[in-house]
This record gives sequence, C-alpha cells and structure tokens, in this order.
Amino acid sequence: MNRRPLLIAGFVVLTGLAAAGCRSRTNDVLAEADETAIREAFATALKAAAAGDAAAWAAVYAEDAVLLPPHGASVQGREAIRTWIAALPPLSDVRADVADLEGRGDLAYARGSYSMKIAVPGAPAPVDEKGKYLEIWRKQADGSWKLEKDMFNSDLPLPTAAPAPAAN
Amino acid sequence: MNRRPLLIAGFVVLTGLAAAGCRSRTNDVLAEADETAIREAFATALKAAAAGDAAAWAAVYAEDAVLLPPHGASVQGREAIRTWIAALPPLSDVRADVADLEGRGDLAYARGSYSMKIAVPGAPAPVDEKGKYLEIWRKQADGSWKLEKDMFNSDLPLPTAAPAPAAN
Repeated sequence: MNRRPLLIAGFVVLTGLAAAGCRSRTNDVLAEADETAIREAFATALKAAAAGDAAAWAAVYAEDAVLLPPHGASVQGREAIRTWIAALPPLSDVRADVADLEGRGDLAYARGSYSMKIAVPGAPAPVDEKGKYLEIWRKQADGSWKLEKDMFNSDLPLPTAAPAPAAN
Repeated sequence: MNRRPLLIAGFVVLTGLAAAGCRSRTNDVLAEADETAIREAFATALKAAAAGDAAAWAAVYAEDAVLLPPHGASVQGREAIRTWIAALPPLSDVRADVADLEGRGDLAYARGSYSMKIAVPGAPAPVDEKGKYLEIWRKQADGSWKLEKDMFNSDLPLPTAAPAPAAN
C-alpha cells in the first residue's frame, strides 16, 4: 500500500493548522496570566499613590518609561518619574477603574478614569480631582508587565485665567 | 527502505517551524503597509485640522472611537467627535510629529507632540498651544486603520486661578 499521498496530506493539514493558529493568535486577546499581571501592577500603583510611596509607585514603570502629564513636559525614565511623583502633594481617596484592557503579544493598552483628593499647599481643604488615563504596557524579558507610556488629563474645566487688574 | 522515521522527522520540523514563525510573529513590528496606512491617516487628520474640515478629520476615527480631551468628559463615537471638532475655534500652523509608532497584529499605538495657534474668541491674536498625544489605532475589517482612542494634553502651565477679590 502506497502511503505517500496520505502522508503528504498529513503534512499539508498540519502546516495549514499551524499557520491558521498563527494568524488567529496574532490578533488574540491577552492571556489571562498577562491580564492578571497588568491588573496587579495597576493595583500596586494605586496603593502606592494612596500611601505616598514614590519608590513603590515608580517601580511599576519600565526603566525607559515616559510619563505624559498635563501642563508640563514629558518625564523621561523611571528615575525622573520617581522624582516627579515624590514632588506631588499628598493624595487621598485615590480611585481608578480599568474600562479597557487589551493587548497583543508583549504590548497592551489600558484606559480608564480616576478620582482623588489633592492636598494642594495653601488650599483650605484637599481639592477634588477627576480625570482619565491612557497607558501603554509592555511585557518584560522576565515575564513581568511594566507601564511604558502613561498619559492622563483632568475632566474638570480649566481654571479661568486671572482677569487683568481693573484700570482705576 | 523504511521512510517512516524520515517522514516523522519532517512532520516535527515543519510543525516546529510553523510554531516558531507564529511566536515571533506575535511580537513582530507592524508590516510596512500597516505603518504607512497609519501615517497617511495621521497626515489626513492634520491636514483636515488645518483646513477646519470637521468631517474629514472625524473620518479618521473609528465608528466607536473615544476622544479623551483635557478639561472635559470623554467624547464617545465618531459623530460626537465630529460635533466636538466642529465647535473648535479656527486652528492654524498645525504641526505634529510621530515619536513612537508600534503595533502587533490589528492593534497599534502612536505617541508624539503637536503645536498650533488657536483663534480663541475674544483674544487679540491667535493663542499658541503645544502639547503631546497618545493614540490607539485599530485595523478595520476592510484593511484600513482607524483612530480608536485619542488622548492629548498641553505642555503649557495651567493658567493661575483668578485671585479672590481684595476685601476693601
């Protein structure tokens, strides 16, 4: 019995299946372990923010991360981000949700909203702030996920500029 | 001659190669055609912004896109984004660069900076604005790329709040 046609068919089917798995995997959602790792790192950042722990908060960022804060220049690298965080006024009631979390391979993004109270120096009471964020996360060589790009902005109206002093 | 060991080896090698191609492809950079499509859509948005063409600008967004502007709530969907754009004061000298453009499969992100002049109503001359953006792009069923999440914020300092009127 000549098994060659059967074997050739086997090759074709196996290679086709592998290629099909390949194509769908490229657009696959994050593995559950990856999603869990990102959500845990996100929760760590939130806890550190509430505790005023700049080192623990900065540790969630990649070594070459870029923080993109409103009304200031981009902050390049984990060490500069740690310094930026350490200069923040005390935060309380820090909350954030994750509305979107999606990724492919080693790259993911998260989007959501946040709210907090900021103890602005000189203000009689902590100031309410709420806004939204968009983040890029990247899987590291050791399998952990780190925050690589972090942008946020406020939902609250821009304060009105001080009016010109009256002429008289 | 017994060809079975050779054929089994063939199966193993082919399947292994397909799987390896698979793994590396998951973390592959965008295909050149995908990167070009995103850059062209980005350029279209920029041109539409300078021309004050809200419809052409909004057409760059996905049907279910979310615009995340500073000092306001998120704007949900292309139609609401078109209305938001149409309400902008006239823009001129609109410039933007793409510092990062990276993606996997059907998902990509772009990051960069922008500058423009805004003809704010009541201002004696157009006001300079510069800032940065972070965007999520998604490949559509027809092969085109659309902007799905779009966040930006200003590099310029927050205007100082109006001081309380003097008591006397």
